[in-house]
Amino acid sequence: MMLEILNNITKPTLLLDKNKYLLNIKKMAYKAKESGIGFRPHFKTHQSIEIGNWYRDFNVTKITVSSFDMAESFTKAGWNDILVAFPFNIREINRLNELSSKSKISILIDNIETLIALSFLNNTVNFYIDIDTGYGRTGIPAENIIAVENVIKHSQQIKKLDFSGFYCHAGHSYKTNSRDEINKIHNKATKDLSNLKTVFAKYLPRVLYGDTPNCSLQSTFSGIDEITPGNFVFYDLFQATNGSCTEDDIAIAMACPVVGKYKIRNEIVIHGGAVHFSKESVMINEKSIFGKTAQKNETGWKPDSNPLFLDSLSQEHGIVKIGSKDLGSINIGDIILFLPVHSCLTANLMKQYITLEGDQIKMI
Amino acid sequence: MMLEILNNITKPTLLLDKNKYLLNIKKMAYKAKESGIGFRPHFKTHQSIEIGNWYRDFNVTKITVSSFDMAESFTKAGWNDILVAFPFNIREINRLNELSSKSKISILIDNIETLIALSFLNNTVNFYIDIDTGYGRTGIPAENIIAVENVIKHSQQIKKLDFSGFYCHAGHSYKTNSRDEINKIHNKATKDLSNLKTVFAKYLPRVLYGDTPNCSLQSTFSGIDEITPGNFVFYDLFQATNGSCTEDDIAIAMACPVVGKYKIRNEIVIHGGAVHFSKESVMINEKSIFGKTAQKNETGWKPDSNPLFLDSLSQEHGIVKIGSKDLGSINIGDIILFLPVHSCLTANLMKQYITLEGDQIKMI
Repeated sequence: MMLEILNNITKPTLLLDKNKYLLNIKKMAYKAKESGIGFRPHFKTHQSIEIGNWYRDFNVTKITVSSFDMAESFTKAGWNDILVAFPFNIREINRLNELSSKSKISILIDNIETLIALSFLNNTVNFYIDIDTGYGRTGIPAENIIAVENVIKHSQQIKKLDFSGFYCHAGHSYKTNSRDEINKIHNKATKDLSNLKTVFAKYLPRVLYGDTPNCSLQSTFSGIDEITPGNFVFYDLFQATNGSCTEDDIAIAMACPVVGKYKIRNEIVIHGGAVHFSKESVMINEKSIFGKTAQKNETGWKPDSNPLFLDSLSQEHGIVKIGSKDLGSINIGDIILFLPVHSCLTANLMKQYITLEGDQIKMI
Repeated sequence: MMLEILNNITKPTLLLDKNKYLLNIKKMAYKAKESGIGFRPHFKTHQSIEIGNWYRDFNVTKITVSSFDMAESFTKAGWNDILVAFPFNIREINRLNELSSKSKISILIDNIETLIALSFLNNTVNFYIDIDTGYGRTGIPAENIIAVENVIKHSQQIKKLDFSGFYCHAGHSYKTNSRDEINKIHNKATKDLSNLKTVFAKYLPRVLYGDTPNCSLQSTFSGIDEITPGNFVFYDLFQATNGSCTEDDIAIAMACPVVGKYKIRNEIVIHGGAVHFSKESVMINEKSIFGKTAQKNETGWKPDSNPLFLDSLSQEHGIVKIGSKDLGSINIGDIILFLPVHSCLTANLMKQYITLEGDQIKMI
């Protein structure tokens, strides 16, 4: 089947290994279950109704998304407990009112200005306070108990807005390859969140947490009620580089045709550029790269024992240095598979998947 | 009108200033006309049927695209002389046969392997030999006369494949901010191409050339028959940084809502991330940035005299350091305009434009 799929490929194509994908979900669902915590996967990575539905076999009923566009699509697809894990954008109040009439919608809030704008809600909306345990992107710093208290108190004056608990994305776990550092980030986050849970115990707050590195690497989640990782479903070179997965776990690969061979520079050019991979890069062997080859086999692919790297990208072109490999072994028209650096961004650009069974899966 | 448009924006939105766009085309069309050369604009930047149609007022009848996907869309829209300026991908032979039955299609070739695969063409196809004058991405090095001759000779054995001339994208002009360097690149390219034109004069080759920096900055194009720039239609921060345009010429801007304010770090967070801007960055003031604010006014926007920069991006979030500006002057829910680093990639992600007259323009 794999051979047939590759034969039919004419242009850059995103392949999905459903077995790897299901195994990634199974492991994460099992970890949540064993830890006695809920599992609310983030759907921003795959953005597909069909792929989302496969989660149902693992008893997933609650999901996370990062925009109202996604929330609308997944509500239509029958998901009725959705966290929009993005600072609530007060310009989307009409969409919130519309959506919350159809589905249980939870939002993130970290400031009073946003609360004030929510004075006129049509339906009950749950909110989590976004907590910053060191990432420094959004959220109230975990130490700022007074600011947290202000938000909770103020929210109680707002009809139909229910305080549900705390949310934390410890995304600084993405900035280190050191397991010690990641552990420190996790320990601080769980300690901070447990502390908030104690301080505000009378409100019975739930704690939602979950970046892919920590959800993949940690085995204890004290104080956490639900995990919300997203990227783990596919993983990617970035996650393999920081140790959250092995290359074997990466469930998507880009299939790209060879369109040029340049002996003088020992390079090939593929059809596959910034509009396919995205311009996200990762450091491997002290070089910034945009993809790494995988080895095709009869059933799909496996990590390449002698890999090539996607060294640079323009809009449609990708340049691959051949290094010690013989240029003669690569032909114009060959299909080469590449593991992506950041699967969320690659999937977002490609808009559809082809499974190793040859099924086409559209994104929203 | 601008105020009304901004009031209605709920999420990241790509604004298009049609006057700037038309002025950019007008200047380039005028330059081509004055130089006595053809104008075959690249449509990969805007990827829109409607925007493409506006070129017709400038007597544009021939266009350039970078994929067969685009070639198909623009053929359907009535364009019937299309250069696919990408090394021909032999896996797309069926699409080539299909398209060439409807439109005059030209392709790029730089090797014999590709020629061999073109032995069975249904309809006449024109090809240009891709020439490398120093960029080092694709093409036969301009000095390699024997390789060029081989391709021409071999092509004559292939029925329905017509040699039309030489094509060169001197994209190394993007790698320097020095006007002297850009001039050197242009002088070498035009000299190399003129030389090929002389050597192969008996085939009456046409010479196609055109990266936005050189087409914007140069005033003489000796030996060139047609220019094929694309990005100039919108320009962007990259082009402003290398001097191809001023910030005033940039015809698109991203409008993004403010969703977070962080006094402790003097930062704001906008809805606007890697899935909107792309992860292309440019160095300004020795810092890598992803966007730069523009100042709103009643009719659109103008360059910001005291700009802020988009310092980092995740999938949906953008972080802006406020610097000396007062955080109190920015409110949650405000719309901030940003000039994009690379307009081709931003437009490709956004998929639609809103003009300053409030019209929605879809991409293909």
